[in-house]
Amino acid sequence: MQRNATAAVIGAGDYIGAAIASRFAAEGYQVFAGRRTADKLGALKSEIESAGGRCEARGLDARKEDDITQFLAEADAAAPLEVCIFNVGANVNVPILDTTERVFRKVWEMGCYAGFLTGREAARLMLPHGRGTILFTGATASVRGGIGYAAFAAAKFGLRAVAQSMARELGPKNIHVAHLVIDAGVDTAFVRERIKARGGEAALKNLLPDTLMNPLSIANAYWMLHSQTRDAWTFELDLRPYGETW
Amino acid sequence: MQRNATAAVIGAGDYIGAAIASRFAAEGYQVFAGRRTADKLGALKSEIESAGGRCEARGLDARKEDDITQFLAEADAAAPLEVCIFNVGANVNVPILDTTERVFRKVWEMGCYAGFLTGREAARLMLPHGRGTILFTGATASVRGGIGYAAFAAAKFGLRAVAQSMARELGPKNIHVAHLVIDAGVDTAFVRERIKARGGEAALKNLLPDTLMNPLSIANAYWMLHSQTRDAWTFELDLRPYGETW
Amino acid sequence: MQRNATAAVIGAGDYIGAAIASRFAAEGYQVFAGRRTADKLGALKSEIESAGGRCEARGLDARKEDDITQFLAEADAAAPLEVCIFNVGANVNVPILDTTERVFRKVWEMGCYAGFLTGREAARLMLPHGRGTILFTGATASVRGGIGYAAFAAAKFGLRAVAQSMARELGPKNIHVAHLVIDAGVDTAFVRERIKARGGEAALKNLLPDTLMNPLSIANAYWMLHSQTRDAWTFELDLRPYGETW
Amino acid sequence: MQRNATAAVIGAGDYIGAAIASRFAAEGYQVFAGRRTADKLGALKSEIESAGGRCEARGLDARKEDDITQFLAEADAAAPLEVCIFNVGANVNVPILDTTERVFRKVWEMGCYAGFLTGREAARLMLPHGRGTILFTGATASVRGGIGYAAFAAAKFGLRAVAQSMARELGPKNIHVAHLVIDAGVDTAFVRERIKARGGEAALKNLLPDTLMNPLSIANAYWMLHSQTRDAWTFELDLRPYGETW
Repeated sequence: MQRNATAAVIGAGDYIGAAIASRFAAEGYQVFAGRRTADKLGALKSEIESAGGRCEARGLDARKEDDITQFLAEADAAAPLEVCIFNVGANVNVPILDTTERVFRKVWEMGCYAGFLTGREAARLMLPHGRGTILFTGATASVRGGIGYAAFAAAKFGLRAVAQSMARELGPKNIHVAHLVIDAGVDTAFVRERIKARGGEAALKNLLPDTLMNPLSIANAYWMLHSQTRDAWTFELDLRPYGETW
Repeated sequence: MQRNATAAVIGAGDYIGAAIASRFAAEGYQVFAGRRTADKLGALKSEIESAGGRCEARGLDARKEDDITQFLAEADAAAPLEVCIFNVGANVNVPILDTTERVFRKVWEMGCYAGFLTGREAARLMLPHGRGTILFTGATASVRGGIGYAAFAAAKFGLRAVAQSMARELGPKNIHVAHLVIDAGVDTAFVRERIKARGGEAALKNLLPDTLMNPLSIANAYWMLHSQTRDAWTFELDLRPYGETW
Repeated sequence: MQRNATAAVIGAGDYIGAAIASRFAAEGYQVFAGRRTADKLGALKSEIESAGGRCEARGLDARKEDDITQFLAEADAAAPLEVCIFNVGANVNVPILDTTERVFRKVWEMGCYAGFLTGREAARLMLPHGRGTILFTGATASVRGGIGYAAFAAAKFGLRAVAQSMARELGPKNIHVAHLVIDAGVDTAFVRERIKARGGEAALKNLLPDTLMNPLSIANAYWMLHSQTRDAWTFELDLRPYGETW
Repeated sequence: MQRNATAAVIGAGDYIGAAIASRFAAEGYQVFAGRRTADKLGALKSEIESAGGRCEARGLDARKEDDITQFLAEADAAAPLEVCIFNVGANVNVPILDTTERVFRKVWEMGCYAGFLTGREAARLMLPHGRGTILFTGATASVRGGIGYAAFAAAKFGLRAVAQSMARELGPKNIHVAHLVIDAGVDTAFVRERIKARGGEAALKNLLPDTLMNPLSIANAYWMLHSQTRDAWTFELDLRPYGETW
């Protein structure tokens, strides 16, 4: 079933973003996938299309207002923008004295400022349609400022504030804004490398099943939030594997 | 499709509890529905059965350890207990000086102590099966102690603590424990009466669509939580209508 | 300087409670110190009196409404009750399956129910005076339900709910209600024994200075809260040593 | 009593900042007061000096790394920097669609980025001394993203994250980092004007005593935090008038 509606994913580059894009494509949405380098979206586009879905891949710098505005406008021109997902991250851990102003600013621009631009522009396009869903990807650092996370947590706390403020303002206008706190490692090549670097080949081999999050499972949570009827919307939920210590 | 598994709902009396019971019955679970007066479960049982489902109705006092133990043991004897939902509430609003020790204790026994008994006994039965889902119904008062809510919030905060503690201990043992913060009025005869009492017939007539929560929508959230794969479990989510001020 | 006012401490038995009692006695309040066994208050009473202060020691069961009512009434009869501190705890850590209903109930009766009775009765006596301060001792378990803490956290979350609800209702009536989250070990014989049991004599000897909280430092925080002018009251603050991991 | 130590206040311009500067000057600290326009600090400097205190007034742009670095270095050169207070705000309320990228960025630069720079540079100077106190001024918007507050709350949430992260990293190094949530209106000409604009002359005249916060009372809370012994430090406390609804 094809829907006459678009779903935009900003930050479609990593595992989560790609899984979300595929999930919404599988539900009939025309997906607009954006990330820094368009070339890197080729595999995702092929995968979606070979499964019978529709995907437009675009390169964009999420920290540039014009890029965001144009990307979302293009999506909305193709078909009404119904879903917008902000999934740009910039997880860094640096001792406070070594956190340069450049890093602090860049992490914020990617993790918070870009999210604000995305949310605001999505809302601008959705309000005339009278409906829409805007979802923000959060992390442990959205609710806890741990050691070394001054930059990352400042961005993630800030993004959560944007999401809360938008949810309260836009909910009554039938725009569902939600925030997902992803509180553990996702099963990516990067995370597996890190486990190996820390604990050796054995650590990787002994990894218990389902102790890393499958991007597909996360994508299902985004889909579920979008599927909620408006009489019972969720603003925030957390996600972690069964074995996680928290 | 019938499953060889039971879903127990303690506090199946009100709208939410009944909707949850129906939802799980529709998914093939043999439902054990418990509330104070078994007679009042007749309609629910009939409704489930006429839809092709299975429902056992039992009267029980959730504040009595033996009642809880026996009810859940009976469910588990019929087929492995896979889902257990605690949905007993006791919403009261009383100025602090007028809150008798009897009210404070009773509200706690119903809202917190009974939840502890339910969760613990469900866990005891589920652990040998190596799996299970335990869901607790929370409210605004689970996270905010408003004026007049000393008794109710003390019970609800306490229930949330039980849920958190159980989630952390039982998650690694493959038992999914979650807590739902229901942050608004559910569409029940009682709530409609209250709206009428406050604002007259007009207030009721002018009620915008979907501004009260449909019990079915809430039941869907319980089902969704139970459906999550264990690599990405949610501990807590909130639910409220799109038009709600929060 | 002697004040014509009483300060009541319920749970004056442990190190914190005794330090608070001494602190308020040193500020000129006639202190009413209550704990389960009056005999054990002898040292505290002597210490306060030899420092020139006033202290009445009473045995009471904080879980009995009559005991609380009578204790506070007696204090208020001696001189207007201006400060009331609830400091009864019952820290236990038990796996969920081993948490008996008896333990769950008792921990709640001591940690939450007794706090409600204390707060309510103190408010009843203070309202006619048009002023007063009611302070509740919280813990890490007031805001986090850790593994094994179902009983303790349920009580402590509940006590925090009571405090919040009372603060919101009584603030405008000039009663200052506050809650202190004591997020680490206090320097007591019991805690030192535990450190020794875990890490041996060496662990105790190597303990860095100021890594356990001095009861006097905690008592200072209670005094500070009571000293706040009503245009800038604090409801909640946390306390932990500088070296604590949190 | 004069201390051989400096206290720096960044954002000394408003009522709170000035009161804090005066409070620490009265305790014997040589105060370095910074705000955008040095000229506007004349009254504060005179007031402090005529009370026998010491105050250096400096113009600075808190969003410029060099300005912050130089300001704090100068303070530390005069005498060891012992206290640093970040009190720059930028409270704005704008509907999400009207929040320009310029406003969002500027509010963040003033409210969060400048705070990060301040905290980091203060820590850099204090660590060699082996001690120090860094205090951040928060607001309701530090913990709640209300309607129209996307920009302000994003900055304030972010500042709180910086404070948390720094507190956890620097606490064990004997630097006390704390965050104050000022949850109501302070008694300033601006706030009184706003009350008058909304409710007329009568609203201002009928204002109950102590329902606006006296800057001096707030300054006392900063002093109290600095005075805490390191075995019992507070990270966060809230402040509001007794009559406030929260």
